Amino acid sequence: MRSSQYLLSTMKENPADAEVISHKLMLRAGMVRRLASGLYTYLPTGVRTLRKVERIVREELDKAGAIEVLMPMVQNAELWQESGRWEQMDAELLRFQDRHQRDFVLGPTHEEVITDLIRREVTSYKQLPLNLYQIQTKFRDERRPRFGVMRAREFLMKDAYSFHLSQDCLQKTYDVMYQAYSNIFTRLGLDFRAVLADSGAIGGSVSHEFHVLASSGEDAIAFSNGSDYAANVEMAAALPPQSERAAPAEALNKVSTPNAASVDEVATLLAIEPTSIAKTLFVRAEQDAEATGPAFVALVLRGDHQLNEVKAEKHPRVAQPLSFATEAEVQQLTGALPGSVGPVGLPIPVIVDHSAAALADFVCGANETGFHLTGANWLRDVPEFETADLRNVVSGDASPCGQGTLEIRRGIEVGHIFQLGDKYSQAMKAGVLNEDGKNQILTMGCYGIGVSRIMAAAIEQNHDEHGIIWPDAIAPFQIALIPMNMHKSVRIQQAAEQLYQQLTAAGFEVLFDDRKERPGVMFADMELIGIPHQIVIGERNLDQQQVEYKHRRSGEKSLLTLDAVVAEMQARVQAV
Amino acid sequence: MRSSQYLLSTMKENPADAEVISHKLMLRAGMVRRLASGLYTYLPTGVRTLRKVERIVREELDKAGAIEVLMPMVQNAELWQESGRWEQMDAELLRFQDRHQRDFVLGPTHEEVITDLIRREVTSYKQLPLNLYQIQTKFRDERRPRFGVMRAREFLMKDAYSFHLSQDCLQKTYDVMYQAYSNIFTRLGLDFRAVLADSGAIGGSVSHEFHVLASSGEDAIAFSNGSDYAANVEMAAALPPQSERAAPAEALNKVSTPNAASVDEVATLLAIEPTSIAKTLFVRAEQDAEATGPAFVALVLRGDHQLNEVKAEKHPRVAQPLSFATEAEVQQLTGALPGSVGPVGLPIPVIVDHSAAALADFVCGANETGFHLTGANWLRDVPEFETADLRNVVSGDASPCGQGTLEIRRGIEVGHIFQLGDKYSQAMKAGVLNEDGKNQILTMGCYGIGVSRIMAAAIEQNHDEHGIIWPDAIAPFQIALIPMNMHKSVRIQQAAEQLYQQLTAAGFEVLFDDRKERPGVMFADMELIGIPHQIVIGERNLDQQQVEYKHRRSGEKSLLTLDAVVAEMQARVQAV
Repeated sequence: MRSSQYLLSTMKENPADAEVISHKLMLRAGMVRRLASGLYTYLPTGVRTLRKVERIVREELDKAGAIEVLMPMVQNAELWQESGRWEQMDAELLRFQDRHQRDFVLGPTHEEVITDLIRREVTSYKQLPLNLYQIQTKFRDERRPRFGVMRAREFLMKDAYSFHLSQDCLQKTYDVMYQAYSNIFTRLGLDFRAVLADSGAIGGSVSHEFHVLASSGEDAIAFSNGSDYAANVEMAAALPPQSERAAPAEALNKVSTPNAASVDEVATLLAIEPTSIAKTLFVRAEQDAEATGPAFVALVLRGDHQLNEVKAEKHPRVAQPLSFATEAEVQQLTGALPGSVGPVGLPIPVIVDHSAAALADFVCGANETGFHLTGANWLRDVPEFETADLRNVVSGDASPCGQGTLEIRRGIEVGHIFQLGDKYSQAMKAGVLNEDGKNQILTMGCYGIGVSRIMAAAIEQNHDEHGIIWPDAIAPFQIALIPMNMHKSVRIQQAAEQLYQQLTAAGFEVLFDDRKERPGVMFADMELIGIPHQIVIGERNLDQQQVEYKHRRSGEKSLLTLDAVVAEMQARVQAV
Repeated sequence: MRSSQYLLSTMKENPADAEVISHKLMLRAGMVRRLASGLYTYLPTGVRTLRKVERIVREELDKAGAIEVLMPMVQNAELWQESGRWEQMDAELLRFQDRHQRDFVLGPTHEEVITDLIRREVTSYKQLPLNLYQIQTKFRDERRPRFGVMRAREFLMKDAYSFHLSQDCLQKTYDVMYQAYSNIFTRLGLDFRAVLADSGAIGGSVSHEFHVLASSGEDAIAFSNGSDYAANVEMAAALPPQSERAAPAEALNKVSTPNAASVDEVATLLAIEPTSIAKTLFVRAEQDAEATGPAFVALVLRGDHQLNEVKAEKHPRVAQPLSFATEAEVQQLTGALPGSVGPVGLPIPVIVDHSAAALADFVCGANETGFHLTGANWLRDVPEFETADLRNVVSGDASPCGQGTLEIRRGIEVGHIFQLGDKYSQAMKAGVLNEDGKNQILTMGCYGIGVSRIMAAAIEQNHDEHGIIWPDAIAPFQIALIPMNMHKSVRIQQAAEQLYQQLTAAGFEVLFDDRKERPGVMFADMELIGIPHQIVIGERNLDQQQVEYKHRRSGEKSLLTLDAVVAEMQARVQAV
């Protein structure tokens, strides 16, 4: 491709409205443009990478035995009413009416449509298992779309759905898809991890997320340094401390802590570590049918630990969805402001995180505004409580797998696989005749990859101050051909044209920068776009029948003789 | 692909709700399923063909220098308000609001979005010309979706838009796209014609449609047998008759024609040919600013000719859009019912088609219910009238190109290219600095292909009583491997498995029908799906180390030795 005949659309300046580096670089490198909130046009450079990601995803799924289908983006409301999600989902599910005032949605996902298809087309166990996928545009009316294509409203997704008669059979396909996902992200050239995950609103039990590791990632992932255990921090179990709780040594004592509401403020004021403090949160309690129980429960954590909301929400005493008491409710319960509350003398159930339960002679709020207690001890001062895993794991925690300790890194979720079970097949009565001739409800798996999001995640992981550093497999072009001052030199022009012919004839995707621009502008653009291999043609080197080769990622430069360029590129450009 | 691990979904019975053969066959062959009115899921067999069509379209556009982009399906209303189409388009443009009550549309086409993109990204003549395309899902809320994917609401389209500073430059790209379209339909293996067309609501002047020829086509196309002239019948000019009008020979005479209202009834009653009758229609007249002119004009055609509404609407005396007088209005104008009206003595302007104007001693309505005139003559009986081309051409007419006569065939429109001019660029103020440093509004072309519709059109053209007959290039599979009673014969199974390995290793796409089905069921399914090359493995032939080859289109059968199968297939299967 000659850049003079291409829509390069690079930008020198950093766009003001882009919050994350991938968004900035995708705008600056001419990959996307915003049409409206959460809606992006892919420019030619963006489409080239998008199609490469799409192709790798398709090839690996085909290899895994998944079969491609294509479902409509516009879906009739009846199916969503049948599954219950018409009611359950909030405004993220975009609903509209057609010209005949019939209700439709723009599909955010396709469990309903595929389950409806399968219950019509598959009637016998002989047709199972089946694993169907599509690569298709989705729409989710996010409340706050942001970070460019990372969290857009319209986006390209690969979604797959598998159908089985048994959990064993589902597990087999799940394992095959796990491997296919690993193959995909490996081929894409990304540093990724598969991690145990919460299956959330989609439903089901077992699930894994695939994360591209990047310091800017929204998710925290816990890894064992002694095994291949990895889990989303949401899911990683915090083991109870091994050592036994020390016996009480101090007497309970009330101290004045004016203006010290946070753990850090109290720690500073009392000259103690946050690890000696117990902090207390109030959340709404799960109610029995008569709603006779307490309205709230107290959750107690060690001062340096963070509440894990997924774990808290799963506790049987805690109402779903998790809902915190308001300041007024806290005052009504305890008589104190939230910064001065604690577990001593509370009239409601107290659930203590294992690590907080291991404290002795700890500090906590006195349930009197501006006062804390020191020398507090479980059992002696809080006779009734239960313990649970309520916190996020932290670096250095023992790994729940039993081997090694945990490290925390950040990741961007680009894939998610779920064992759905019968959530949709039961609601929509999708069954087949089994070997005994009886109707049996299907067991399902579902498997998603954010195709367009992968581009942003790849950039978050692969960039420097000059721009994007694409892995070879998904670079918009493999080679940038940069002739210096070509429009003033016939010799440069001839060499450039000849190399362009040779390289394209050899099957390389070459961006030939034939614009009338200063070399500095061309270098900067090619670095910004992140083309992995660059060939610079200049007068001086040409005197020796040479050109300069530069590797974008390593910065390594070398001189190549003109005759050797194609062979060198064949050796250096990674086959996709 | 093994059919046991595939979603074949063939149907024996003709589906009740399918009106056209392609829709029936796409349902029966397991290519698509209806989700809701005008919304279809593509099953695996459908997707395989769809992706092949898509690939050929993409490759040929890339070769033609068009550059791929991808625009959102969801578009903000502001752009449509700016172009004026928010008001102009009817309910076919699906409008909806997002969670913040902002107006959006589901894109039926992308002139607005691309024009907005270009006015932002392209600022200098140096960046032109540009030709951008996308292959993307469109939505049109058709009043009456029908014929399966032929006229669906959601469909896959390739749309391209080119931008220029001059008509000459547009013409060059238009010619390149015309050639690219010809290459695409040739590679798809379809019998097609490019025809002159009306540019209709999209706007612009020159346009060509690409039609797949099929007797079931909705459009009539006129071809010259003496040149390469071809035009949509809407557009084909009917030349005035060469011979001069005969002098009046009969006197005007009123005859009673009770119950004879149609041309055929009058012809039968009076024992004359429809070619001797003049029929008269009344349409609303174009009004001047004061609306002082006549409210209607009369259009007169020869009895055997059909009014061409596109031509009539373009006549300066006729109001746009074309609107016929009601029966009551006809009675008020003439005193007679519409079956008894004629040009003699009318108080409004009379426009006579050239062929009707060549009549002498003709029959027409007497403007008195139940009566006609015989021996009518222009000038003598209708002193004032004008002539125009108002009719559809018919087979045998002289070709407007001056060479040969016209033949009429039917076609299905699968592509349309337009010279748009400045319709959108003017409305949206899309200009660049030209070589003189002055702002100049861009000139545009646009180019569409109905990717999903091509599948239906290909079937309308290529089928027989057994099912689809795919051209090799877009067949879902190239080869069907049909082992007879494999599950009872280890020898058949071994031969089938070996051939399957050999053929797939050689790069062929093989559907290996390994189901436990009777041979008759398997043959019928493979014929129905339309796989072009079939290999049948049976006991008797295997005794001779042979298999039977069958060519789907010709029905030709031959015996191949096992060793020769791969080489024979390499010779017979057309490279794509």
